[in-house]
Amino acid sequence: MGYSETIKIKVKSQEFVDITEKVEDIVKESDIDTGLCNVFSKGSTSAILINENEPMLLEDLKKRLEKIASSKDLYQHPENAYSHIRSSLLGNNHTIPVADGKLALGIWQQIMVGNLDRETREREVVVTVVGGS
Amino acid sequence: MGYSETIKIKVKSQEFVDITEKVEDIVKESDIDTGLCNVFSKGSTSAILINENEPMLLEDLKKRLEKIASSKDLYQHPENAYSHIRSSLLGNNHTIPVADGKLALGIWQQIMVGNLDRETREREVVVTVVGGS
Amino acid sequence: MGYSETIKIKVKSQEFVDITEKVEDIVKESDIDTGLCNVFSKGSTSAILINENEPMLLEDLKKRLEKIASSKDLYQHPENAYSHIRSSLLGNNHTIPVADGKLALGIWQQIMVGNLDRETREREVVVTVVGGS
Repeated sequence: MGYSETIKIKVKSQEFVDITEKVEDIVKESDIDTGLCNVFSKGSTSAILINENEPMLLEDLKKRLEKIASSKDLYQHPENAYSHIRSSLLGNNHTIPVADGKLALGIWQQIMVGNLDRETREREVVVTVVGGS
Repeated sequence: MGYSETIKIKVKSQEFVDITEKVEDIVKESDIDTGLCNVFSKGSTSAILINENEPMLLEDLKKRLEKIASSKDLYQHPENAYSHIRSSLLGNNHTIPVADGKLALGIWQQIMVGNLDRETREREVVVTVVGGS
Repeated sequence: MGYSETIKIKVKSQEFVDITEKVEDIVKESDIDTGLCNVFSKGSTSAILINENEPMLLEDLKKRLEKIASSKDLYQHPENAYSHIRSSLLGNNHTIPVADGKLALGIWQQIMVGNLDRETREREVVVTVVGGS
């Protein structure tokens, strides 16, 4: 059994936007009781983050990513190599358990889509639910 | 078809505890022959690691994480921003194939739950198996 | 419903090899229309990367990994601790949605297997598809 929907959302450069409610709605629509919900961002300069949606923490993460793969360093790939590297480290997909028809997230866990590219981009996130009802 | 169980386990700060056998037992219970086993830690300062459970290697990883996101640096998020950043880089969830009713892990691959927070915490890990019997 | 096949492929040290077509073929074989495709590398010094297969970008990533976990630093684990650390940061598994019987990848997203070990290794990648037809 499988159910899928796509979320489209504009995200500014280096920002993370909370999509937990949208994903939760898709899980409800799926009618799946026990299974898995995969959240996959279709861009190679984007990421899916499962962590606490707290503005200062997201600022810390942004600064730390600038340290790990700086936008000011020299790269061979034109323009946005650092965006691809940040995406590779955070991952563009994560899979969350579904229990009793709901996402089994911890209290301080939200699902966010991050845009690591140089400018605002519309991000496409495919949400897929599999399991049994 | 979906089957789920939760593991609760106390983990010291910056330690990784092997839960491979517990996950393997849940896969057996699930009666699923071919499919996927998702291991998801419910804490935003925790991580799931699939790698070699070798004490010196885990010490190396701990030291490297201290370099990448140091506990001594200044952050805006109170107290444990570095814990959240380490969790975001390692990931709080991983998905392992199930073949012939068993986890299809490599010889040097164990499943570990890491506590990246400042003190000992009880970690809740949801194990979900989907597929066919 | 579950379907699984294993890809075996030789990969040079610090190289990433594109396996998108091989994975796509396995999805076709599976006859699954809507679901998930998990790509799992069985080595603890390997990684699965979903990003753009562009030679200069892969060179940038290789150099950045050398900065993050240098092969020249001192570690306690013998010989290849840096390989394990790089694997832990990139992840040895990723899960991709299957829609209309195909991988729902973005245009600039390819599936690659990376060998982060010190020498050429044959890598074993388990591809598992679950969902409904």
